[in-house]
Amino acid sequence: MTSLQHVNPRVKAIRVTPHSGLQSLAAHITRKIALGVQKPFKEVIDVSSGDPHKAGMKPVSFVRQVLAVCLYPELLKDNQLPLDVRQRAQRLLQACDGDSVGSYTDSSGFTHVRQSIAEFIMRRDAGVPSHTKDIFISAGSHSALVVVVKLLAGVEGEIQTGVLTPTPGPHTLPKLLDECGVTMVPYQLMEDQGWTLDLDELHRALMVARGHCNPRAIYISNPGNPTGHVQDRKSIEEVIQFAAAERLLLLVDEVYQESVHGQGREFISYKKVLFEMGKEYSETVEMVSFHSVSSASFGECGLRAGYMEVVNMDPEVMHYVETLLCTNICAPVTGQLALDLMTNPPKPGDSSYDTYTQELVLIRTTLSQNARRAQEFLNDLPGMSCQSAMGGIYLYPRLHLPSEIIEQAKKSEVEPDVLYCQRLLEGEGVLVGAGCQYGEKTGKHHLRLCTLVPPDTLDEVLARLGSFHLRLMSGTTSP
Amino acid sequence: MTSLQHVNPRVKAIRVTPHSGLQSLAAHITRKIALGVQKPFKEVIDVSSGDPHKAGMKPVSFVRQVLAVCLYPELLKDNQLPLDVRQRAQRLLQACDGDSVGSYTDSSGFTHVRQSIAEFIMRRDAGVPSHTKDIFISAGSHSALVVVVKLLAGVEGEIQTGVLTPTPGPHTLPKLLDECGVTMVPYQLMEDQGWTLDLDELHRALMVARGHCNPRAIYISNPGNPTGHVQDRKSIEEVIQFAAAERLLLLVDEVYQESVHGQGREFISYKKVLFEMGKEYSETVEMVSFHSVSSASFGECGLRAGYMEVVNMDPEVMHYVETLLCTNICAPVTGQLALDLMTNPPKPGDSSYDTYTQELVLIRTTLSQNARRAQEFLNDLPGMSCQSAMGGIYLYPRLHLPSEIIEQAKKSEVEPDVLYCQRLLEGEGVLVGAGCQYGEKTGKHHLRLCTLVPPDTLDEVLARLGSFHLRLMSGTTSP
Repeated sequence: MTSLQHVNPRVKAIRVTPHSGLQSLAAHITRKIALGVQKPFKEVIDVSSGDPHKAGMKPVSFVRQVLAVCLYPELLKDNQLPLDVRQRAQRLLQACDGDSVGSYTDSSGFTHVRQSIAEFIMRRDAGVPSHTKDIFISAGSHSALVVVVKLLAGVEGEIQTGVLTPTPGPHTLPKLLDECGVTMVPYQLMEDQGWTLDLDELHRALMVARGHCNPRAIYISNPGNPTGHVQDRKSIEEVIQFAAAERLLLLVDEVYQESVHGQGREFISYKKVLFEMGKEYSETVEMVSFHSVSSASFGECGLRAGYMEVVNMDPEVMHYVETLLCTNICAPVTGQLALDLMTNPPKPGDSSYDTYTQELVLIRTTLSQNARRAQEFLNDLPGMSCQSAMGGIYLYPRLHLPSEIIEQAKKSEVEPDVLYCQRLLEGEGVLVGAGCQYGEKTGKHHLRLCTLVPPDTLDEVLARLGSFHLRLMSGTTSP
Repeated sequence: MTSLQHVNPRVKAIRVTPHSGLQSLAAHITRKIALGVQKPFKEVIDVSSGDPHKAGMKPVSFVRQVLAVCLYPELLKDNQLPLDVRQRAQRLLQACDGDSVGSYTDSSGFTHVRQSIAEFIMRRDAGVPSHTKDIFISAGSHSALVVVVKLLAGVEGEIQTGVLTPTPGPHTLPKLLDECGVTMVPYQLMEDQGWTLDLDELHRALMVARGHCNPRAIYISNPGNPTGHVQDRKSIEEVIQFAAAERLLLLVDEVYQESVHGQGREFISYKKVLFEMGKEYSETVEMVSFHSVSSASFGECGLRAGYMEVVNMDPEVMHYVETLLCTNICAPVTGQLALDLMTNPPKPGDSSYDTYTQELVLIRTTLSQNARRAQEFLNDLPGMSCQSAMGGIYLYPRLHLPSEIIEQAKKSEVEPDVLYCQRLLEGEGVLVGAGCQYGEKTGKHHLRLCTLVPPDTLDEVLARLGSFHLRLMSGTTSP
């Protein structure tokens, strides 16, 4: 029998975040309610993860209609479905082997879809060239990142490869790096300046890292998860210059590129900036950018599809990207087709154009109004301060907790922000993310809330959170 | 810039099979035909992979109808769809967070679907208990196997973990083990006895392995890929006794369990045999069994979903199975739902029952008739001999090649069976798998053909293959 002592030490070293503990508690409370146990709330609302459909956001009709027809081509005859839906489904089916979404695709994904993605990137970046051969489709941006990190990992026992990662940053990163045997090299984002990247801090992190690992890449989240910060051109240029000078591979998580809502702020891709910095950079700086159907306005997390664009990688190295994708067989076909719809949406004149546009405007307006409203509300609470989010689907307010609570957390051997989240969940049935999941270790405490939820749901979340928070701060609820 | 010398040595060590070379050649020929280049055939027919839809097999209507409704719930109102389709879709949607297939699920998969799977296993195994907590859903059986193999892998630099694997065996195995840093320990299947497992050979392989790695598991493919052999109860008991005595984890690939078509032969699961061998075995022998929607009669390869059932694993070790699944986020939701339909099909009285049953009978009859017909045809060819397949979707005939061809292959530095496949592809536009992809290294040469294809397609494949083979054997075509 496989005993614990025989389990791969690298697997044992994968760190567990408090996220799953909070999720289990939420599931436990939900089960109790179903059994008739009385609680001060009717149901648990989960705004801890970036899962808009779970929170009640509606899928985009065009996407679902086309996928339904692709799955069941008899619907090609259904005149109640818009003409362009049926035409698109027909074209996509023709690209499938045997005209079926049940066939395998190339490991790098459908050539047809990779082409749509390359054209989308060129339009987005005002003509900066993008090539189908540099686009790789995977089962989500996370899977694509795993491929690149695996490629960079060193031999066990020898000095590890390091990747610079933002604090705070996506909670999935530490596990991913642990699993690949790569050292996480945290750099701190500047909360007081609205969560900007600071060049001195990058240099500091790199210098410290050089003592104990081989830093080979820097991970950037822009628009920022969980911070909501969106970099301006100057900041992106600085990071590119830093990566060039230090010979680091740029891993750019741009999955929230469609979700920029800060006034006067627009999304500029790293690739566009890179190509506008001249050949010295555009022909040398190695970069991989990630995007996905989960994080776009579609919010199609369950379809599991994303892609990466690889820039300036040695073709001999790129060969191993293909080898690794190949060992994964291929990404789910329905997800791949959704990527095609995301990057090549209905055009003016198409029968679905108006509905599609209205649905997307509604999603984006909801996000931007929610973000503003929630931020104002949180900033009005005592002991809470929230930087304005310019993009992404999260707010990341800071908690200034009374010392009794910090003491109580110490006694219970739990992080103060986790204790806060547990109490909020038990008292008000609201699940939010605890800052320590996102790498915070500086004695500062934060929460993460997803704001891409129906406005009514947000109202309910804020009301419950506000009520709990005021009780806690006034000492009328036990910490 | 990441240079070749910096690429993870483990990634560099992943072996490349000739499969991709033959696939590229096939794609090249297809492109030429599209450009108007004259060939003696109108199109390339690919029977090299187990991809029934690609080869022209039709999807099962019930599966596609339910998935279409789940994706686009407006179809719940469509009275042209069978009532049970709409009812099932409604129930599945209720199991999805936010009633949407766009939400994430637990990393181990939908509890609802895991329950359907456990009930299916219990029915299949005449009541042997199966528990939802032991079922893990993943993006295909391959991904599930990766999780278990990663768990077993040792520390690099130290002596490697070994897994006993069949020769011939699935062509995806060597890459998978390479990527996880695990040594492949081949055991030879007995062609002359219809590709049976031989106990002495298992002992021999294990003894040799103990000199250079830590053998910790044995991989079994039953029904066999590519051999088509189906083990009887006695053979399964012997393997279980061997695994028990040698303290090996049993990794049982049972993905073709529905495709047993040999006369008088039925599928018996390893789990059922294990539980009928008494407590000495049923409470101690550690086993993982794999199944998937790709390999079932559904042939839904593009949906990417499978599952494993874990038996007798230490709960503390099992915890790390969950940890590893968690780093993969979750399996695609449409695929997970297809697993529910596979394990809980329409029942007598349901409106879809008759159609579903007819479609499945047609698929299974096609497979069984094709297998018999192809085997007879191949055995009638000079220089070709084919064991009868009892299950699975492949035939694996042996080639007795003239010495000129073997000489020619040597000169071209290519395996003789690969040369055969290249010439067959170029001359007749038929793509089959070369035996060396499945681990054959004994100087014996084989081909693998998928037989789950429309009968017309099989006719065409056999006619072209026969014509090429006769020319080759008579020396009227250049080798």
